[in-house]
Amino acid sequence: MKRTERIIALTEILLSHPNELLTLGFFAERFQTAKSTISEDLAAIKESLCIARKGYLETIPGAAGGIKYTPEIGREEAQKFLDSLAQTLSASDRILPGGFLYMADILYDPHISKKLGLLFASIFRKRNPEAVVTIETKGIPLALMTADALGVPAVVVGHGNKVTEGSSVSINYISGSSERIQTMSLTRKALRTGKRVLVIDDFIKAGGTAKGIMSLMQEFDAQVVGLGILMEDAVWHTSRLVNDYHALLQLEIDTATGNTSVRANRL
Amino acid sequence: MKRTERIIALTEILLSHPNELLTLGFFAERFQTAKSTISEDLAAIKESLCIARKGYLETIPGAAGGIKYTPEIGREEAQKFLDSLAQTLSASDRILPGGFLYMADILYDPHISKKLGLLFASIFRKRNPEAVVTIETKGIPLALMTADALGVPAVVVGHGNKVTEGSSVSINYISGSSERIQTMSLTRKALRTGKRVLVIDDFIKAGGTAKGIMSLMQEFDAQVVGLGILMEDAVWHTSRLVNDYHALLQLEIDTATGNTSVRANRL
Repeated sequence: MKRTERIIALTEILLSHPNELLTLGFFAERFQTAKSTISEDLAAIKESLCIARKGYLETIPGAAGGIKYTPEIGREEAQKFLDSLAQTLSASDRILPGGFLYMADILYDPHISKKLGLLFASIFRKRNPEAVVTIETKGIPLALMTADALGVPAVVVGHGNKVTEGSSVSINYISGSSERIQTMSLTRKALRTGKRVLVIDDFIKAGGTAKGIMSLMQEFDAQVVGLGILMEDAVWHTSRLVNDYHALLQLEIDTATGNTSVRANRL
Repeated sequence: MKRTERIIALTEILLSHPNELLTLGFFAERFQTAKSTISEDLAAIKESLCIARKGYLETIPGAAGGIKYTPEIGREEAQKFLDSLAQTLSASDRILPGGFLYMADILYDPHISKKLGLLFASIFRKRNPEAVVTIETKGIPLALMTADALGVPAVVVGHGNKVTEGSSVSINYISGSSERIQTMSLTRKALRTGKRVLVIDDFIKAGGTAKGIMSLMQEFDAQVVGLGILMEDAVWHTSRLVNDYHALLQLEIDTATGNTSVRANRL
């Protein structure tokens, strides 16, 4: 096998196994070549990915060591992406009754949610979350893609009190904007106790849902290490039930004219 | 820039832009090199990916042409993956009341749902779907990852009759296994009429839900080009409301002993 072919195959394996520790021995056997040769190849890949700002290759030394690819998005690329997304979402026909914005097409476009997931992962990776928690339904694509970029599982809290999945924990919470009492629940099986969790959701108004998830996480002895939100509603800015969160976009609706404006927050 | 560095950067760009047509001119400008040089690099990448069975690079000739990477999973790797998944799902503590199986942890593990999405995409790509349709909640990760591998958007049908997202179409359907009348609905905005759609879901028993989605798709003048299911329930095999589907796994529950067995279907 020629060096070029091997480098291409190596690059493909690394990129398609993000966050996984792969040993030099694994590569040496796969490509029937010396570990020192693999090391040289990996150094070239590391440099090239670094220059392109596409994440980094980390070398873990020792007997249990190996190489791990961590995907990242560069700040400049991310900001450009958010600016363009804000523009798309500012279209006047997106406004829905109740001060919500139609975003389902954006969320369920894997091309977009994948980039948003990578962005959330880049922001929160240093806090070492062990799971990404969201509430059904529209938070799911963001949570799944964030979990993918972090290399951890996603956990989906349900609305209401379903009992089809065995023993579960339910809590009541007050939706801050509608002031109604609602229920959310999570199967015991879905999350082992004592984990570090990152909470991801698509929208925050008064923050009642986010606060509900925090309470539910307490029941699982989980430590919430971050709260990432795609869109915050500017109206509730001063009276929110949770304040320690990171929102990517901000929605402002002029109630008199009905005009909508979406801005990308600075990263 | 050395050839090795350029090859690595090229491989990364192609793999992270699946199903997108990229022009030779784009690469030539990015890497400040001749199109003929890029062509040679791409030929090497094409061969290497083909040998590793990681999809193919398609060259589209002409002025509007370029190169497109299509991700694929080899049959052997896919079958091995399904066999191992079947074994995981056969654990006795996964059985839920009502003859369902606890699969949420599998579905929300992006590592697994990504591979399943790639598998569904490999099966149905030739039918040229323009969107992947599913019903909330647990079909979402599969539909999203399938859509990602196909390079099309996902569309999520809701339970009940929510009116928060503007004008929508609702239909009533009978859940074949519970024989209850239920409602599902989809916002008009979510799917333009006349599209070719692939339907993806996590579980099929009597097929009432699948049949419901088919009826709903008629309202959007959509052509259902395929139905992909992760798990079929063996009990309902002879009396299903829909028959033209592709299931990856089969569940058999011995009602006398309560023993569960999950088998991978042959690809």
